[in-house]
Formats: sequence, structure tokens, C-alpha cells
Amino acid sequence: MIIQLEKGITPEQLERLRDKLREIQYKATHVSAQNGDYIIGVGKKEFDIRAIGTLPGIRDIHRVSDDYKLVSKKWRVEDTLIELDGGIELGTGHFALMAGPCSIESEGQVEETIAHLLANGVRIMRGGVYKPRSSPYSFRGLGIDGLKLWYEKAREAGIKIITEVMMVEQIEAMLPYVDIFQVGARNSQNFNLLDALGEVGKPVLLKRGISGTIDELLQAAEYIFSNGNERILLCERGIRTYETAYRNTMDINAIAMLKEKTHLPVIADPSHGVGLRRFVDKVALASVMAGADGIIMEVHEQPEKAFSDGQQTLSFPEAERLYKQLRMAFNLREGFGPGF
Amino acid sequence: MIIQLEKGITPEQLERLRDKLREIQYKATHVSAQNGDYIIGVGKKEFDIRAIGTLPGIRDIHRVSDDYKLVSKKWRVEDTLIELDGGIELGTGHFALMAGPCSIESEGQVEETIAHLLANGVRIMRGGVYKPRSSPYSFRGLGIDGLKLWYEKAREAGIKIITEVMMVEQIEAMLPYVDIFQVGARNSQNFNLLDALGEVGKPVLLKRGISGTIDELLQAAEYIFSNGNERILLCERGIRTYETAYRNTMDINAIAMLKEKTHLPVIADPSHGVGLRRFVDKVALASVMAGADGIIMEVHEQPEKAFSDGQQTLSFPEAERLYKQLRMAFNLREGFGPGF
Amino acid sequence: MIIQLEKGITPEQLERLRDKLREIQYKATHVSAQNGDYIIGVGKKEFDIRAIGTLPGIRDIHRVSDDYKLVSKKWRVEDTLIELDGGIELGTGHFALMAGPCSIESEGQVEETIAHLLANGVRIMRGGVYKPRSSPYSFRGLGIDGLKLWYEKAREAGIKIITEVMMVEQIEAMLPYVDIFQVGARNSQNFNLLDALGEVGKPVLLKRGISGTIDELLQAAEYIFSNGNERILLCERGIRTYETAYRNTMDINAIAMLKEKTHLPVIADPSHGVGLRRFVDKVALASVMAGADGIIMEVHEQPEKAFSDGQQTLSFPEAERLYKQLRMAFNLREGFGPGF
Amino acid sequence: MIIQLEKGITPEQLERLRDKLREIQYKATHVSAQNGDYIIGVGKKEFDIRAIGTLPGIRDIHRVSDDYKLVSKKWRVEDTLIELDGGIELGTGHFALMAGPCSIESEGQVEETIAHLLANGVRIMRGGVYKPRSSPYSFRGLGIDGLKLWYEKAREAGIKIITEVMMVEQIEAMLPYVDIFQVGARNSQNFNLLDALGEVGKPVLLKRGISGTIDELLQAAEYIFSNGNERILLCERGIRTYETAYRNTMDINAIAMLKEKTHLPVIADPSHGVGLRRFVDKVALASVMAGADGIIMEVHEQPEKAFSDGQQTLSFPEAERLYKQLRMAFNLREGFGPGF
Repeated sequence: MIIQLEKGITPEQLERLRDKLREIQYKATHVSAQNGDYIIGVGKKEFDIRAIGTLPGIRDIHRVSDDYKLVSKKWRVEDTLIELDGGIELGTGHFALMAGPCSIESEGQVEETIAHLLANGVRIMRGGVYKPRSSPYSFRGLGIDGLKLWYEKAREAGIKIITEVMMVEQIEAMLPYVDIFQVGARNSQNFNLLDALGEVGKPVLLKRGISGTIDELLQAAEYIFSNGNERILLCERGIRTYETAYRNTMDINAIAMLKEKTHLPVIADPSHGVGLRRFVDKVALASVMAGADGIIMEVHEQPEKAFSDGQQTLSFPEAERLYKQLRMAFNLREGFGPGF
Repeated sequence: MIIQLEKGITPEQLERLRDKLREIQYKATHVSAQNGDYIIGVGKKEFDIRAIGTLPGIRDIHRVSDDYKLVSKKWRVEDTLIELDGGIELGTGHFALMAGPCSIESEGQVEETIAHLLANGVRIMRGGVYKPRSSPYSFRGLGIDGLKLWYEKAREAGIKIITEVMMVEQIEAMLPYVDIFQVGARNSQNFNLLDALGEVGKPVLLKRGISGTIDELLQAAEYIFSNGNERILLCERGIRTYETAYRNTMDINAIAMLKEKTHLPVIADPSHGVGLRRFVDKVALASVMAGADGIIMEVHEQPEKAFSDGQQTLSFPEAERLYKQLRMAFNLREGFGPGF
Repeated sequence: MIIQLEKGITPEQLERLRDKLREIQYKATHVSAQNGDYIIGVGKKEFDIRAIGTLPGIRDIHRVSDDYKLVSKKWRVEDTLIELDGGIELGTGHFALMAGPCSIESEGQVEETIAHLLANGVRIMRGGVYKPRSSPYSFRGLGIDGLKLWYEKAREAGIKIITEVMMVEQIEAMLPYVDIFQVGARNSQNFNLLDALGEVGKPVLLKRGISGTIDELLQAAEYIFSNGNERILLCERGIRTYETAYRNTMDINAIAMLKEKTHLPVIADPSHGVGLRRFVDKVALASVMAGADGIIMEVHEQPEKAFSDGQQTLSFPEAERLYKQLRMAFNLREGFGPGF
Repeated sequence: MIIQLEKGITPEQLERLRDKLREIQYKATHVSAQNGDYIIGVGKKEFDIRAIGTLPGIRDIHRVSDDYKLVSKKWRVEDTLIELDGGIELGTGHFALMAGPCSIESEGQVEETIAHLLANGVRIMRGGVYKPRSSPYSFRGLGIDGLKLWYEKAREAGIKIITEVMMVEQIEAMLPYVDIFQVGARNSQNFNLLDALGEVGKPVLLKRGISGTIDELLQAAEYIFSNGNERILLCERGIRTYETAYRNTMDINAIAMLKEKTHLPVIADPSHGVGLRRFVDKVALASVMAGADGIIMEVHEQPEKAFSDGQQTLSFPEAERLYKQLRMAFNLREGFGPGF
């Protein structure tokens, strides 16, 4: 149950609401998010919601029977639009392209990538400075210094930065330089990290876990929202299955279903979704037709020399061709009307 | 190793070839298919293929190191085009639509469905008369009588029939009434059935197994081809994963990869791929962008009353809208050029 | 709903029962099995079962809400015991060992294997004469001649034969030479084969599908039983998962759960369950502790020279050690009492 | 490559070694662990290891081609034995029992549980004070205060504490009260947490990820070891598969394989491995036969009232029976000899 509070609700009115919830044995969680304050009530008893909905200080009340509440479309029917400065909008009806290397490697690379993005009208650059690696002996990223270097170049060019955060302690130092925090697949249920990102004033792109369910992804997003940050993007990046012909199995169904279940924007990551360069274009285009609001993909000035993920990274010319195709596919889809 | 034989190869020349293969301890399988005769050689020894390629009676010779040979694009670079009479062509560059009910239920249904297909320019009708069902107590189809009834109506209308065959004994009786035999997911590795369909003069649409790998699907097709029938269509219909939010997980990666690995046409089945009516359109459109040569889907005059699979079946109006969208998506994709 | 009929039920009484079922819109399936006659009623309406249970000619009536009925323990509380001649019993409380090569390869091999089994008190020999192989170019077994050769030797020695049947047409020819028909994982939902084996007077060992669920396995067994053959053994042989470190993932949970859900004997196949020779003993022993009524495993006089599956096949000395350990583990478990 | 250093290696000798590694372009990681100092060299070039092995200050050198090095049995042939004070030993040949509630709930519960453990000779108590929960609205544990309360009671009784740590910031506060840190399945690839636990002087029990591979688990352990802590226990707790009949699929194969690949102790968690109380005993016993060095399981004075995981938690009488059975199974297995 989601109870939207009036802006001017008094402490007494709030207490009366809490009393009511205690009476019916509902656990109450107070959420202060960018667009309003809410009480999330969780319990099992059946009762007449009007008994609460008509209390003073209550703007609206919604039953949501799913395990996730605030991120559900059952409650917030209108899709969430996330604005970055510079007039960038993310969400339904606005097609987002995010591209860049797996890892930030050097100043020269950052410059070349930014030039490539500018030339193609792409305004958000991806890149890792903290890299989760299976082996402790692998390259683990340039860290905060890499991020600062990148930020200098990106700010000048008007390019926004999306990059992965791996632990709570990194957030504060990264905050000034990041436009969108990314939570990687391995941290999709790192609940402390999600809690902490819920208290941050920057959008968060949350990747689905390596074998995460739709439901777990939405509940992970609920962690962020319920801590106060409602600027969340969900990302389908392929799941682990028995098939070993590709790195992951892109779950196109998930894109279609997420667009139905939540008001949050849904981004597709075809680079990890298939993990093989020559199929990234097909998978990206398929993702758009399935309803994705944007694509995040790996590009590199010399994919075969990339520090990581080279086998799934597009060259600049390959990426250029794909950006155009994606925009055409998006336009075709938009022509079909909302929800098709 | 695939050895293409000259049409006029003499018995003596053939024997000399077999001797050569025995010498290098290769197992030889003779294949007589619609477009030629082949010897498939399987063995481990390294040797100079020119020693065989230059023998009299040999047209060409190809090394194919994969477990599948005849269905591989490494050997037959040009994509296979399957022609049905009435000028219908299936394969790269020709977009195929196949639609109809899960099960054939009644004469009235057949008539209504045919009228719907004709009105929309769809020329191939799907429908089951032998239904594989998990439970022995479920409806198992109208059988051969249902097929005959259907055939009467379809022939008049110039509509082609694709329907599932479940066992070797059914083939002969079905043969006069079927345009394309379908092998279902549960029979994808029913090797005796594949052997028998290899000796039939009708095309075969082979579905991927419920948890079949790309490699297993291609080897299953190899069974059919190596028995003499090279008119095979492969069908991606979703795989079994840990995700229970949908019936199956449509494997969009598989479509892209199959188009690269084999010269055979690749058809997508979004109805089973996601198993929920409201997502069939998105998944179908995604499949086209990933490279599918056609779509097979379930439609019904009253989906909620269908004997089986109603929850994943489109109504006629829903299907009409989707046919148009699919053709637009196909045209967009074709504009991107071959292989994009 | 399972309605057990009296032996002397009259045609009129039967018709009256059918009328009653029609009235409540239940589909009725008549089953004539070795131990009695049943009507299986499937429908949705709620009604008082006593209205049927008290009809003349009815021995007993049971509600079974699962998708499988006759194989359920909810109805038949006492576990099924399958007897082979020579005093061999299979089922709860009787530990069964079945061993032999993947494929029957030669007369000498059969003789050596039988000597090995006799020396170790193993009375059932496994071996394939029809082999389902992923590739059409692999060795596919010696066929019916291999079976006859094997039968000659086995009969003399008092050894029973279990071997795989792949298609309906093979049953009749195999019948005189087989003691237990095996249905392989790839045919676990070959419903026509299951139907046909339901009409045969020999026990059937049914393997779980490559990615078959517990429920699907039990429904597959229901096919056999509902066609009249209640002498069925279920076999857990590992499932397909994302883990590639071994051939399959042995599902120990399935053994424990099947023993609870069904009255049929449950056999474990550790050879396929892990697919690596050096772990077969651990997995076999674990299966016994989880509740298996027997073990079927691959042994070969020279595993490294086996035509197929050599990497998961035990040598005779390895097998000897394991037989003893398995019997000790079984005795320990039996000491824990029924269901532990 | 693992290079074991002499205790008295001089800075000059160390520098000479590093020079040699630079020469062959190997990345060197210095590891200071409880039982010695190592340099881990990672690179691609082939070279004669004797050229390094004979340098002064080098005790020994081992090639290890796997992605994990220090945790591999290829290098350390003798199994690791982890000692806790009070004379408790964990590892090959020493059977460990760890039991307790999912969550620590109250002082009374702690007392009852300790009495139960003491009466049964179980010396390690499990229990969560920080609980990873899918939903932000679920009970998340009593936190550090719960741990302190528990510690008071446990120390008096001579019972050791194993409990989950979820984030780096918790380690310091927990350290005085914990005997074994547990890393949960969702944090199995939380690399920062693993790094930090590598610098702690307490053993770590590392659970396999929800869909973690054997290889990923061993590489995760390598993170801990390569940061200096070699007192690691691995834990198989079931994996995510397509089967929904139980919470997870216990991977018995993994236990057998881990015992072969690593010198670290391997613990089985049957409570999560199957997730249903009535099968926990079978799965626990199976795990012992597969080679587990110990069992961690959930027990509760009133399972049906547990705050979490009640459906998979044993009552005290159920647990008592199982402890005895497990010890008997362990003794039987030990009688089979090392590695059986």
C-alpha cells in the first residue's frame, strides 16, 4: 500500500496515520523522494482503504499487491522522465544512446571517444574506472583519478558521464564527477549499496543480476526509491542460461515486461547481452523494437586492443552505422503508437 | 568434410573415393539430396584435401570442422531458398508469415481463419492436429480427419498448411495434406523422426528443443539433410531458463547466430517465445530486427475460448495490426543491407 | 479423481458411473492396469465424492489434485514393488544395482561384463543397442542383432537386461529379449512412445528429460500408467544448468522429492549425473543417502576404449569397490528407518 | 605461477625476483598470508621456471594454469586445516557441524539454541544479524547489538559464532565478536568485501553465488587469499535452475569437484540447498557422502514462528536425529579411505 502525503501534512496528522496502520498491524516505512513523501504500508490484513484515504493530510492511497510498490506502474501510471542538465531527457518517448569503452584507459582514449560521440549526436558516455573482475589479478580500473581526468574532458564537451560504483565508500568521492551512477550485475542485490544510492541526488542505472529475476530487479529498484531517490533506470543486460554459444542470453521478453510493470525507463545493454561484436547490432535493434528507451553499448577506438571486453566492443565506424539504424528503428516503433 | 559428387560419377570412381577415405580412416556417409549427391567424411586424421579433391567424379570438397556439416554456411555460402508451389519462397530476403490456431478445432474455425489470412495476405496457415500435451488427460488434437478437413478448405483458398508430426507412423498418412512438416520442441532430438523426415519430399520446420543448444539444433537439422531432404527451416521458440515471469525466454541471440552459422531459413515463434499475448507483438518485431526470415504465430477467432494456448494467442484484429508492423520492420531491416 | 472399480463391475454399473461423470462435466479415462481397473476423472466442478463412491461397482475413490494421478502417493500410499523373474524385486527397501557399458559393442564384451556382474552379485545389466546420438555420423548401436546376441548370454547367466527403446516400431521386435525398457532423457516427452509402452507387459525405466521438471516426469509416467502399465521406474540422471564444469548437474533434491510424491521406485544414474569418472562414486553414494532405490551406472572392461561415454564409465575394479560402498550406504540409510 | 618466498628473503633478493618477472612481462602480486609470503606471477610468456626457482630467497615455485592459483590443490597438495580456539579444527578428516536460526531474534532464543547445541556436541552456532532481503520492507536483522548479545552468551558456553557480513564498513565493529565471517550468496562476487576480508585475522566462509560457477567461487576465494587471509571455507548452498519445485537445486557435483580442485574445506548448506524442511536431512546426508567437510544448517526452537526461512528450518528434535545420522555417514565415508 502506498500512501501519498500532502505537502503540508502536520506531525499530528502523520501520527494519526501511523496509529491507524499500527491498528491494522501494518509496517510503515516513510519515504521522502524528489517528487513527494510517502508512507509504504506492508501487512497482511484485509481492510477498507478508504478508512485511511480519507484521513486529513493524505493525498491519495493505492493498493499494490506486488512485492515492489513505489516502482510499480499500478500506482504511478505516468512514466517517469529523468532529466539531466543540458536538456537531456530519459524515459518513454525519448531515445537515449550511451556509448564508450568498457574501461577508461587513457586521456587520449577519452578525447577520441568524446569526438566520436559528438560527431554522432550521442550525449552520454559510459566507461568504467572501478571494474569488477572475476580474477584479483586482472586490471581493475584507473579509479578516482581516471574519473577526474574523464570529467575534465567531458564537461568541456557537454558530454554526460555514466560509470559504475562498486561500494558505499566510493560514492562520496565520485559524486561531483558522475551524472549517472551505474550498479553492475554482480551488485544488483548489494542492498547496502542500493540503500546508499537511495540517498544520492543523482540518477542510478541498475543492471539486472546475472541470474536476477524481473521481480528481484524491481525490488532492488524499490530499495533505491524507498530511500528517497526515484531517478532510477533499469537495464537488461542478458542473463545466465545453459547456452554457451554467447556470453549471456539477451532477455528480450524482460524489456517488454518491464515496460509494462514499471514507470521507470528501461535501457538495453546489447554488448553484454550477447557478448560478441558481430551480433551487437542485431540485438540492439531487437531491443528497441521490444520497447527499450535507450541503448548502452561498448565502443572503442581499437576494440582489439581494449583492456577488457574487446570481443564485444564495436569500432567507431560500426557504432556510427548502428546509431543511425537504432534511430530509424526507434522512429518506426514510435509510429506504432504508445505500447504499440 | 563434404565431398560434392559430379552428377555423372561412375561406380568405379565412387569406389575409388571410398577407398581413399578408408585409407585415412574416415567414415563415409552417402547423401542424396534434392540438389546433389555428397559424401560426408568424418574422421580425425590430418591430410591434404587436394588428394581427394582432384579425383575424377568429384566436383568440390570442403573442410567443415563443426559437428554439423551440410547445414553449415561454411560450405554453402549462398542461403537456401525453399519454394512452395503458388510461388511462395522462404529464406533470406523473403519475409514469411505463418499464422493460425494452436489446435485445429472445427470446420468453422478453419474457414474463419482462412478468411482472416486471405484478407491479410498471409499464405501459410499453422495449426495442430496431433498435439503433444504434458498430461495424458488433455485434448490431443483432431488427428488425420482434422487434417483432411483443413486441407479441403486450404486448397481451395490457396493457403499452405504447416502442422506438427509427432511420430514416424504418422508421416505417410499426413504426406498428401501437408505443405510443411513441423517438428515440435519436445521432438527436436527424436532422431528416428528426423531420419524419416529426411526421406520425405516436403519441407520441414524444425523447432529448437526446450533446452536445446544452437549446436544441437544444427545437428538435428543435419539428421534431416543427411537423409536426403535439404528443405529445412529452423525455428527459435524460446528456451527454458530460471525466469518464471514468462512461459519461455525468447533467445534473440540465437536468431542472429543461426543466420550466421547456417544457410537455412530461420523462423521465429514469438507466441511460445514469451507465452503472453500482450508481449507477442514486441517479441515478434524484435525477432525480425534480429534477422528472422519469418514469423510463425498463434491467432484465434476467440483466443479466450481456444482449446489450448489461449493465453498466448492473438485475436484477428491484434494480428492484423501486427502483420503490418512486421512488414514495416522487415522493410526497414532490408534497407540496412545484407547482414546489416 | 481416481475411481477404483470392483473386479466384477457390470456394464450397467459402469455406464451409470459414466453418466454421473458426464453430469458433472468430468472427462473419464478408463485404465486397465496389472493390478486393477480405474476410471480417471478430470474436471473442474466441485462436488461430493461420496455421490460417486457409494455407487455399486465402485471399490474406492480418491481426490488427487495434482496433474498426475495414478502415479501419485496421495492415492496409493504403499510403494510399488516391481518383480522380475528370478526373484528380483525393485522398489522401497530393495537396493537395485544395474551396470554395464554405454553401448553393447561385441560378444566378448558381453561375456566379460556378465562375468564381472556375476562375481559381484549384480543381476541387471544395462547396455545400449539403439543409441540416440547428437550427430548423425556417430555410432548408433548394433541394433536388434546386438540385442539378440546379448540376450543369449544373459539368459544363460540369469542376468536381466535393461536397454533403451527409441521408437514405437522397435518395441515389438525387442519385447522377447528385454526385461526392462528404458526411455532416454531425449524421449522423456515422446508421448507416442510412452503410450505404446503403456500397453507392454514389461517394466519401463523412464529417465527425466534433459531439462525436465519433477512435474513433467510424473506426468510422463502417468502416460504409461494410464495406458495400462503400472510397472514404472523413474530415473534421475542430472539436469542441464548453466554450470559447464560437468556434463550435467545431478539433482539430488529430485530423488528426495520423488520418493515423497510417488509410489514408484526411483533410480539414480550418477554416470550421466556428473559425467566424469572420478566423481561417479561420490555422486552414486550421495544418491543413495538421498533415498534412491537403486543405481544404474556405466562400467566397461576398458573405459578408455569404449565406443561412447568412456569419460564417465568405471573400470571393473572401480565398480567393484563402489558396489560394496553403495551396499554399506544403503544399509546405513535403512537403519535410519522409513523416510528417515 | 606461485613463488613461495623464504622467510628471510632480503629486499635485494625480492627486487631481483621482481626484475626477472618484469623481464618476462609477468604481473607480480605480493601476498603475505598467515603461513607464508608469496609472489603470484600472471603472464602469458613461456619460460623455464627454474630460472626463477633457483634464485636466492625463493623457497619453491609452482606453475598453476587455472584462473585461481593460491587456493588450488595443484600447488598446495595438503589440505588446509583451519583451527579455532578451543581445539576446533575444520577441514579434511574433521567433521564440522554449524547450526542455528536464520536470524538472531531474541536473547531467549540464543539461550535455547546454545543449550540445544551443547546437548548435542555442536560447537559452532550460525545466525544472522545483518540479513540480505529481497524486499526493503522485510526484517533486516538486529544488527551489531544483536551480535553483542549473542556473543555474551556464546562465549560463556564455549560456542563459536559464524555470521554474515554484508559490507566493508561492518567488519571492524563485528570483528571482536565473530569467529567466522560468512559471505552470502548475493555477495559472492562483491570484490571489495572480499578484498577487505582478506586483511582480517578471522576465517571466512564463502558461499557460492546464486548462479555462480565453480570457477567463479574459486576465484572469489582467491581474492581473499591474495589479500593475505588463507583461512577460507567454501560453501555449496544450491544454485538457481529452471526447476521451481524447490528453492534451489543442491549441486552435489560441486562438492565432489571442489574437494578435488582446492585444498580449502568445503561445507554444505542443505537448508538453502533444497529449501524445504522435510528434505533437509536427505540432502545433508547426501552432501556428506559427496565429500563435504561439514554441514551448516538452520534450526529453530519453533520453526513455524521464525522471522525468516521457517519453511526450511529444522526443529530441535529433528536436528538432533540428523546430527547423529550425519556423524554415522561421515564415519562410514571416512572408512572408505582418502578420496574414497
